[in-house]
Amino acid sequence: MAGSEAKERKILAAVDGSEESTNALSWCLRNIVAENSKDTLILLYSKQPLRFYPATDGPGYPFSTDLAASVERYNTELAESVMEKAKGLCKEVPDVKVETRVERGDPRDVICQMTEKLGADMLVMGTHGYGMIKRTFLGSVSNHCAQNAKCPVLIVKRPETSAPAPNK
Amino acid sequence: MAGSEAKERKILAAVDGSEESTNALSWCLRNIVAENSKDTLILLYSKQPLRFYPATDGPGYPFSTDLAASVERYNTELAESVMEKAKGLCKEVPDVKVETRVERGDPRDVICQMTEKLGADMLVMGTHGYGMIKRTFLGSVSNHCAQNAKCPVLIVKRPETSAPAPNK
Repeated sequence: MAGSEAKERKILAAVDGSEESTNALSWCLRNIVAENSKDTLILLYSKQPLRFYPATDGPGYPFSTDLAASVERYNTELAESVMEKAKGLCKEVPDVKVETRVERGDPRDVICQMTEKLGADMLVMGTHGYGMIKRTFLGSVSNHCAQNAKCPVLIVKRPETSAPAPNK
Repeated sequence: MAGSEAKERKILAAVDGSEESTNALSWCLRNIVAENSKDTLILLYSKQPLRFYPATDGPGYPFSTDLAASVERYNTELAESVMEKAKGLCKEVPDVKVETRVERGDPRDVICQMTEKLGADMLVMGTHGYGMIKRTFLGSVSNHCAQNAKCPVLIVKRPETSAPAPNK
């Protein structure tokens, strides 16, 4: 895919700072993004939506505005930290163009919407996204995106999850 | 990923002669398998298992052996036809090494088992595999493989399935 044969592709990589997404990004860099390609790698992080339910009927909480600001600041710093880590990983492939997007919302919706909005040629992601209980009810982020994203989806597992699961 | 940087990779592509699998293979050839790479593309077809329930308590069917042989012959010819079509498609990338495997069994099990047995670096497949009713109960082949295959899984959809589904 190198040299004159290289095509301009947009590869969207969902990152969340977890080992799973880091591994997926690393695998993508080594196996999909060629050093001389014209690929643009778009790192996408979705912030959790802020959910506050003010106790309007109760005594109220004078610190609620501060709390919201603190949570938002924490979320912003977390997003920046995750992006810095991901961008650092991208230096493995010096020539690749890297862009970053931070959106807010349920990762399942955000990722699927952004593949379409950005016209991604491929979506790369790890296998997790929710805790076990939430995954049981909502389905995993990767399953959802594999079914609903509007482009080919590459799902990369953690190496250790490759071991045969007992009684599976 | 070309030239001296190329790694020897085994890419397993599940083929079944459908438009979905043909599209997935074609996408893989254009986007993953580089012309100068050392990739080996393994085309995997899983024959449906033969299921005959002889009516041992009834009058019997003298043609049952012939029927079994006919079905098996049909399945074999179908597998050969699918493989020829897939190999023809692979000529888009002249330098890629192509191997073929025909196995028997449920595609979900066969594909997952073969990724492990062959030490595949990546599995490529389309999005379908069963009819709607069977998919509802068993889950799709691609979902199953995305969850259970022991390597990264690339799921490629038909271009027309990329259109927004109504009420979804």
